[in-house]
Amino acid sequence: MVKTIEYIDGVVRMIDQTRLPNEKVFVDCKTVEDVGHAIKTMIIRGAPAIGVAAAMGISLAADAIDAPDFDTFYAELETKCAALGQSRPTAVNLAWAIERMQRIARDNSAMSVSDIKMRLKQEALSICEEDISANQAMGNHGQTLIASGQTVLTHCNAGALATAGFGTALGVIRAAISAGKDIKVLANETRPFLQGARLTAWELKEENIPVKLITDNMCGFFMKKGEVDAVVVGADRIAGNGDVANKIGTYMVAVLAQKHNIPFYVAAPVSTLDLSLASGDDIPIEERSTEEVVTLNNKRIAPEDIEVAHPAFDITPNELVTAIITERGIAKPPFTQSLKQLAEKS
Amino acid sequence: MVKTIEYIDGVVRMIDQTRLPNEKVFVDCKTVEDVGHAIKTMIIRGAPAIGVAAAMGISLAADAIDAPDFDTFYAELETKCAALGQSRPTAVNLAWAIERMQRIARDNSAMSVSDIKMRLKQEALSICEEDISANQAMGNHGQTLIASGQTVLTHCNAGALATAGFGTALGVIRAAISAGKDIKVLANETRPFLQGARLTAWELKEENIPVKLITDNMCGFFMKKGEVDAVVVGADRIAGNGDVANKIGTYMVAVLAQKHNIPFYVAAPVSTLDLSLASGDDIPIEERSTEEVVTLNNKRIAPEDIEVAHPAFDITPNELVTAIITERGIAKPPFTQSLKQLAEKS
Repeated sequence: MVKTIEYIDGVVRMIDQTRLPNEKVFVDCKTVEDVGHAIKTMIIRGAPAIGVAAAMGISLAADAIDAPDFDTFYAELETKCAALGQSRPTAVNLAWAIERMQRIARDNSAMSVSDIKMRLKQEALSICEEDISANQAMGNHGQTLIASGQTVLTHCNAGALATAGFGTALGVIRAAISAGKDIKVLANETRPFLQGARLTAWELKEENIPVKLITDNMCGFFMKKGEVDAVVVGADRIAGNGDVANKIGTYMVAVLAQKHNIPFYVAAPVSTLDLSLASGDDIPIEERSTEEVVTLNNKRIAPEDIEVAHPAFDITPNELVTAIITERGIAKPPFTQSLKQLAEKS
Repeated sequence: MVKTIEYIDGVVRMIDQTRLPNEKVFVDCKTVEDVGHAIKTMIIRGAPAIGVAAAMGISLAADAIDAPDFDTFYAELETKCAALGQSRPTAVNLAWAIERMQRIARDNSAMSVSDIKMRLKQEALSICEEDISANQAMGNHGQTLIASGQTVLTHCNAGALATAGFGTALGVIRAAISAGKDIKVLANETRPFLQGARLTAWELKEENIPVKLITDNMCGFFMKKGEVDAVVVGADRIAGNGDVANKIGTYMVAVLAQKHNIPFYVAAPVSTLDLSLASGDDIPIEERSTEEVVTLNNKRIAPEDIEVAHPAFDITPNELVTAIITERGIAKPPFTQSLKQLAEKS
């Protein structure tokens, strides 16, 4: 499996996810601005991967600061962090990684600036490693919910490409297969950005995990036919009550799953929880360019000058969520209590 | 508004719907085989338009038969009709038009072959004219269900382009606007063939009817926000119990509409009713080429050699249907009775 993101010799290297599966091209980010641009343009995407990229970007930013003392250094770092924090609004992992990196700097303010820079680099690498471990732990917990012989529907890409590796939703599937279970995946193509067709189908195929690609509007058809046993998706932010922000269309999948009595699971690390928000109503929904809807392979698929909407995420209310799978265990309703317990667990 | 289909001087002329909205190109069909090819490849599509095209195709077939007597003529015509009947399986209007044309030939078997050919041409033109009148009547009935200020969601294209003119679902919207109502349309792009993005958006924009284009997976998001007041779609076949076969994704829209207490209307001419079928379970669902899913603008959007599904239609069960709008009036549940009454009405 190709590495989604790596931090080597002052360069953050990412596979360009806008060009998969047709081309495997890597992008080298040398500045925090490069990283911010990669996040904004979805060269890298997926809440956990955005968090890892942000941490590495902040380390790049720190290295580039020429400051005689901590206060000067930290003031400059904060400015860079604030700019990076604007790159995408919905995934909370971005804010979480920035806050964690800033805290490391503050907690080590007595160190020399060059030692702080070293400490930030270590922290970015830790965040990356922890993400992979979290996904593996999440997979081990989550796979207990999936039985051999089942077909699991997923939306968007919550796989290795959305994380530092292994994946959240696809991590659950990988862990089930590692446990000897026979699992098939039904992948929604996930318009408009086609993360399902381009990324999920690609990464599963690379590992010979059985996958069938469908358009998003087919998933109800297959649920009605009895061909879906469970849904597993990732998340970009989860409010304290268990409302889940995830890729546009997730809500549609959840409503259809409920209609057909199919369990709907969300797999996400604890860093995706935002217990400061009482409900999903408070989660900002990113509006992306409408060009992403009406242009495909550089050609229009709709008339010129047409009005187009492009909310990039939606909110699935907690009553449609069967369980939330984290690296610390599985939260079940009522989520206000179970998520709080997991967040406080260490 | 451009003409979807015309029959002039031994040529059936259609606008090529595979090339809209980027190019306005007309295709001239000179034989019934040309018409069959146009139906199969979706140069022309939409259940009522397929019926009209089939009738005109049969007239072309009749004209090309060189037979000394009725029996020879009719045997050849039947062979041509049987082949044409294979072009697409789900829309019942195809079989309906073929059966109606064959009956005209049989009912006039005492005429000379050349007179029968003339009679068939008249019948094809009548089917075309009746379709437009039926759509206008359907619109007048249907628009009573839509209030001024409402936003109507539609899926696929059930417009002028899916019929001889005016449209079924979009005919209801046109009639509401003609009645002075202020109506907005939310159009699902309708993957994989993008009839919503390419055709519905185009034909509404041509008439300055306010339309906003969304991806299919966004419709739940807008329903949850309270921005959809009614759904109106077309149909390819309606079983005796009111189960509706329509473009893939219609079932998803219907489930979401039910979840949000939004009325779900189906607009279709009586020729779309198939009262010989007790339920939608008996309606054949066309499986189309998976290339239509994984290729966009002649470029792959998914890895090579991936398994892909492409059911082109789905069945919406009658319990999700609020009313069925026909040219003879509006059928409400229980549909087994109300549809039978409309079918028997003349």
